Amino acid sequence: MSNNRADILAAARDVLTRHSLADLTMRRLATEVGVRPNALYWHFPNKQTLLAALADDILTDIAEPAPDLRWDERLEALATGMRTALLAVPDSAEVVSSSWASALSGRAVADDVASAAALGGLDEHGARAVATAICQLVIGLTIEEQTRAQMERLRVIEPSDRDFDEEFTGALAVIIDGARSRARVAGHL
Amino acid sequence: MSNNRADILAAARDVLTRHSLADLTMRRLATEVGVRPNALYWHFPNKQTLLAALADDILTDIAEPAPDLRWDERLEALATGMRTALLAVPDSAEVVSSSWASALSGRAVADDVASAAALGGLDEHGARAVATAICQLVIGLTIEEQTRAQMERLRVIEPSDRDFDEEFTGALAVIIDGARSRARVAGHL
Repeated sequence: MSNNRADILAAARDVLTRHSLADLTMRRLATEVGVRPNALYWHFPNKQTLLAALADDILTDIAEPAPDLRWDERLEALATGMRTALLAVPDSAEVVSSSWASALSGRAVADDVASAAALGGLDEHGARAVATAICQLVIGLTIEEQTRAQMERLRVIEPSDRDFDEEFTGALAVIIDGARSRARVAGHL
Repeated sequence: MSNNRADILAAARDVLTRHSLADLTMRRLATEVGVRPNALYWHFPNKQTLLAALADDILTDIAEPAPDLRWDERLEALATGMRTALLAVPDSAEVVSSSWASALSGRAVADDVASAAALGGLDEHGARAVATAICQLVIGLTIEEQTRAQMERLRVIEPSDRDFDEEFTGALAVIIDGARSRARVAGHL
């Protein structure tokens, strides 16, 4: 019956986990938390604000890379950590994409990835480009995987033996090779 | 009042263009085409099948790269062409992502990108990895851009000066650098 911000975000995660993003309405969420919609709007003026807070909350779970990693290993750790955090909450990749679109969410992960690339000697433009390639690989592929999982759960399609982890690892390695070739040009490798 | 497959797909594009993916229901589509839902189901047994056909239809508009392009220029042309085809139809990136998730759609673009990478001497695994990185960059970033466009249209958020084209070009260049560094290892550059 509590209705603080953390409880609302926990209930939102729960709706995604037990149902789907399509089921995450302000009305439904209020019912789950056990309050009237008004109480929800006090914390989150609209759904976009709620989704942005939920995205930040989910991305907070990204494990901090070990401090002794080299910059390119750090890129890999951040990308893998982001994917792991998203895979823990169904439909979360779409929530994060939406929150980046609205710009109501912080872009802490993208900043962290860009900072790691900058440690390799890439200039700001190059470091941002690496962050975009990595973040959109994580988001794009995870949206596809989570959509597939929902379809399988609803028995719209048959399970497949598609290995998303392998697709992710392979594509990430290409992007990091691209970052390394930039670092080489910058004299850092 | 016609109800052949092409008319239905044209009406579906029209719903996306004038409204959004959320408005694209089988019922709504039947009304737009001027037929009873049954007539629709005769062509498309369910919504996933419809979305997959729509995705294929949209991706058919990708311009064929000039035949004299080098393999890496071909990668760039395919990626840019895919993005241009998606930007022509609102919410289409999500439609394509969903159709790849269901595996009801062909993956002709991904195959074309992988074939271009193979011309650079990359082995099948590497060529597939380049295709995944490129396709998910296009899909992920375009989902974000099209979501943002819908939010601006509905006045949920203010217009921004974010330059998605520049973000795309920068990230694509990193991935292609990664592909080139693989080609170099393979002795093709």
